[in-house]
Amino acid sequence: MALSSIASRTPSSRMFAQALRPSPGPFDFPCINQLVVKAEHAVRGAIVTRANKIRTRMAKGEKFPFNSVIPCNIGNPFAVGKHEITFPRQFVAACELASLRKDNTLPAEVRERAIEMLAHTPGGLGAYSASNGIELVRQHVAEYIGLRDGYPADPDDIFLVNGGSQAVEFLIKLIVANKDVGVLLPYPTYSLYTAEIDMMDGHSIPYYLDEDSLWETKISELERAYKEAYDKGIDVRALVVINPGNPTGNVISKQMVEQMVDFAEANNLMIIADEVYQTNIYDKNRPFVSFKKIVMNKRSKAPLVSLNSISKGFLGECGHRGGYVEFHNCSEESKGQFLKLASISLSPNGVGQILVDTLVKPPTSFECKTIWERETTAEIKSLGRKAKLLQTALNKLPGIKTNPSNGAMYLFPRVELPEKAIEAASKTVIDGKVVKPDMLWAMELLDNTGIIVVPGSGFGQVPGTYHFRITFLPEPEIMDSVIERITDFQNKFMEKYS
Amino acid sequence: MALSSIASRTPSSRMFAQALRPSPGPFDFPCINQLVVKAEHAVRGAIVTRANKIRTRMAKGEKFPFNSVIPCNIGNPFAVGKHEITFPRQFVAACELASLRKDNTLPAEVRERAIEMLAHTPGGLGAYSASNGIELVRQHVAEYIGLRDGYPADPDDIFLVNGGSQAVEFLIKLIVANKDVGVLLPYPTYSLYTAEIDMMDGHSIPYYLDEDSLWETKISELERAYKEAYDKGIDVRALVVINPGNPTGNVISKQMVEQMVDFAEANNLMIIADEVYQTNIYDKNRPFVSFKKIVMNKRSKAPLVSLNSISKGFLGECGHRGGYVEFHNCSEESKGQFLKLASISLSPNGVGQILVDTLVKPPTSFECKTIWERETTAEIKSLGRKAKLLQTALNKLPGIKTNPSNGAMYLFPRVELPEKAIEAASKTVIDGKVVKPDMLWAMELLDNTGIIVVPGSGFGQVPGTYHFRITFLPEPEIMDSVIERITDFQNKFMEKYS
Repeated sequence: MALSSIASRTPSSRMFAQALRPSPGPFDFPCINQLVVKAEHAVRGAIVTRANKIRTRMAKGEKFPFNSVIPCNIGNPFAVGKHEITFPRQFVAACELASLRKDNTLPAEVRERAIEMLAHTPGGLGAYSASNGIELVRQHVAEYIGLRDGYPADPDDIFLVNGGSQAVEFLIKLIVANKDVGVLLPYPTYSLYTAEIDMMDGHSIPYYLDEDSLWETKISELERAYKEAYDKGIDVRALVVINPGNPTGNVISKQMVEQMVDFAEANNLMIIADEVYQTNIYDKNRPFVSFKKIVMNKRSKAPLVSLNSISKGFLGECGHRGGYVEFHNCSEESKGQFLKLASISLSPNGVGQILVDTLVKPPTSFECKTIWERETTAEIKSLGRKAKLLQTALNKLPGIKTNPSNGAMYLFPRVELPEKAIEAASKTVIDGKVVKPDMLWAMELLDNTGIIVVPGSGFGQVPGTYHFRITFLPEPEIMDSVIERITDFQNKFMEKYS
Repeated sequence: MALSSIASRTPSSRMFAQALRPSPGPFDFPCINQLVVKAEHAVRGAIVTRANKIRTRMAKGEKFPFNSVIPCNIGNPFAVGKHEITFPRQFVAACELASLRKDNTLPAEVRERAIEMLAHTPGGLGAYSASNGIELVRQHVAEYIGLRDGYPADPDDIFLVNGGSQAVEFLIKLIVANKDVGVLLPYPTYSLYTAEIDMMDGHSIPYYLDEDSLWETKISELERAYKEAYDKGIDVRALVVINPGNPTGNVISKQMVEQMVDFAEANNLMIIADEVYQTNIYDKNRPFVSFKKIVMNKRSKAPLVSLNSISKGFLGECGHRGGYVEFHNCSEESKGQFLKLASISLSPNGVGQILVDTLVKPPTSFECKTIWERETTAEIKSLGRKAKLLQTALNKLPGIKTNPSNGAMYLFPRVELPEKAIEAASKTVIDGKVVKPDMLWAMELLDNTGIIVVPGSGFGQVPGTYHFRITFLPEPEIMDSVIERITDFQNKFMEKYS
């Protein structure tokens, strides 16, 4: 709204009897930042809103064709029956409450570690920490990375954050310095990246993963994407990799990591390595290889920022919002400005920070270690089993075909939609928008089965193809129900639109 | 960096042997978002960096004229000796650890409330919650506001957040929709607001509080500020109020709240009421009056967003990062877009959310209530005593004069700097910048006493005046040392520059 349009209202000493700035109100839709309006985060989008309405109506006693809503839209294991890993929760309780550090309610190692942690945390969990996080935790993160990669890491390169999402927010805010800046994103991609880039008015540049090769990256496709963006005048500055893949479940091979590092270095790109699923590995033949390790192996000069999180892996502690980033080959200024962003929100939450500590430094006493190993091993094994179970079931259904998931928490099956379904979608309008075909499929799935998935269009997909993202997190008894419901639905869906 | 300048490097099939985008690196200083570079957050700025270096050198055994660094720069009570309020910590421990909900380690009310909370939190603290927060907590917040103001509040207008800072970040992101938008800020102000507005490339418009009237707001000054901004072509959309005041410690009178609400309504401004210190009240004659209550009293149409936090008041649980905002008279779209921002970071941390629950719903059983009342009353009384103690001591010193603090956690004393000190500052350059006179004073205070305060220039002040913000949080034994050190310092400082 241009001010000139209201310039005829000359201010006077009594100007405040009538507003200088006329309607709309300052917080009405036309005034709201349209870059935020534009941004979309598929995993919490229209389908989730629809599901919440169903839940509310169910709670009021309304009958549906199912007896529960099952959230398979998001990597949120505790919401679908996950059991807690004991040690981290005991550790939090001991750090919170002085009496638990004194009596014998909790194991000795828990109490000792809590006392040690608090000795390094002035004021304890109630106090703001340093904006980059508790130093002792950062040291343990560095040790963990050192053991993982075989190269020492520096605690001063580590920043603790309120989960991986906050790290991505900060990084995109720093990198997308103007409207010409572009970031290469794997497609299908995690919609956090597109949302943050949209809010900074930058360019998301898709490089498509190859569905026919188990969602592997192709360097020729990266080159195509980069060249096309360059030809449009886009200043491509960063390459995002998600490994293991979200939503694809792909684990990038060592050879491909090497090629991607070379590509980034040759093209003066920084690498954002989203490695939050690094312990969600289900195939021994496809081990996780960190970008940091390869950058070190190659002595590459490519600037690299790697992310890890307590929300994924065997911990799955999403609700506690904790994670870390490691900077490597990055300028001191970039770390300084990242720290400034962290300092503006003062400090990451303390509980998230100390849970990072348990992620990177497991217990060592017989009592705690035995339980820890049993629980964490069982969790990863169970995820691998459920991935296979769901994959096998889905591949039996008409019109659905899915790659296996070697990592992460998702399958990203392809749906061959009948012509009639595509036509039906084109005639369906919700909130003033024509519904995309895979959104129609996901809505009908929800309405008929209570299962929440995310339509592939929310992640980006090769035009003309349709997918959905589904987690394989539900505990076995819930998973059986998911498979039963989806099987029944898909058979009827294909019949309905045949 | 214009792409045209490198257009001579024509892409080719082997273009990747040499970067299309030449130096500097993508994450080097010239490439970083300059709006972030511009932003400053005084409470974590240069003085804190300097203090951290001193701490590191002390830890290595170096000798200083003091034996400890005392952080009076930030409202971080646990860092300066605060004791935990028992019930909230017990509640967190019980929500974290199933065994504590079963045995008799913790009081019955704690266990029962934890069980009730978890029944309303699918997946417990390990799961992402709804992006607007746990519904039961939002209901309790609404009940608290209803009791406080005498008007019912709606849980759907409440959003739980990772502390007040995150709410401010989201609000400024939504409101500063373009470069012409301005926000009226009380000066001296909390630097979070200027930092967020700078990062959105908007305008911070100071309205100066009146130091001679105990830092009270003056409507004539608000009018001046608004008119001058309007004349510059700035589209003023919001009015920020901080009550009780940060850094001033002022509590706004009921009459002034009424006038400010009228001003906002008449000028089509939304009100952001930062009320995080609402229970930090030390003078019975200056009670806290919420903006919500006055908006309701007056049936005003002014859009209002009010903030509260677990970091302040008697809880002081800064490190846990929890708080809430209440929307009133705001469009559904504005709430929807706020929710979207929350959903992009998935959900606020769960522990922060359940601590909000204890803030707004104290315990009721004899066992827990007795301890709660003793602890919370003692905390607020102690803060009031320390405020008076520090104020009295500072007012005895040459060149220092301070208003009393009726609320919040700070004094904002004025320092009359000798000409020679101002001259010395003009000749001191740090990090390529000439040091401001009050920064020189604060640096010398730090170097000589180990006390960290924030120079007034970090908050904005009437040009030609100098101040510092100091918390009165240190526990009595530390406070005695603060007073002793600062007295000794100021006498020597005035002598040095006389």
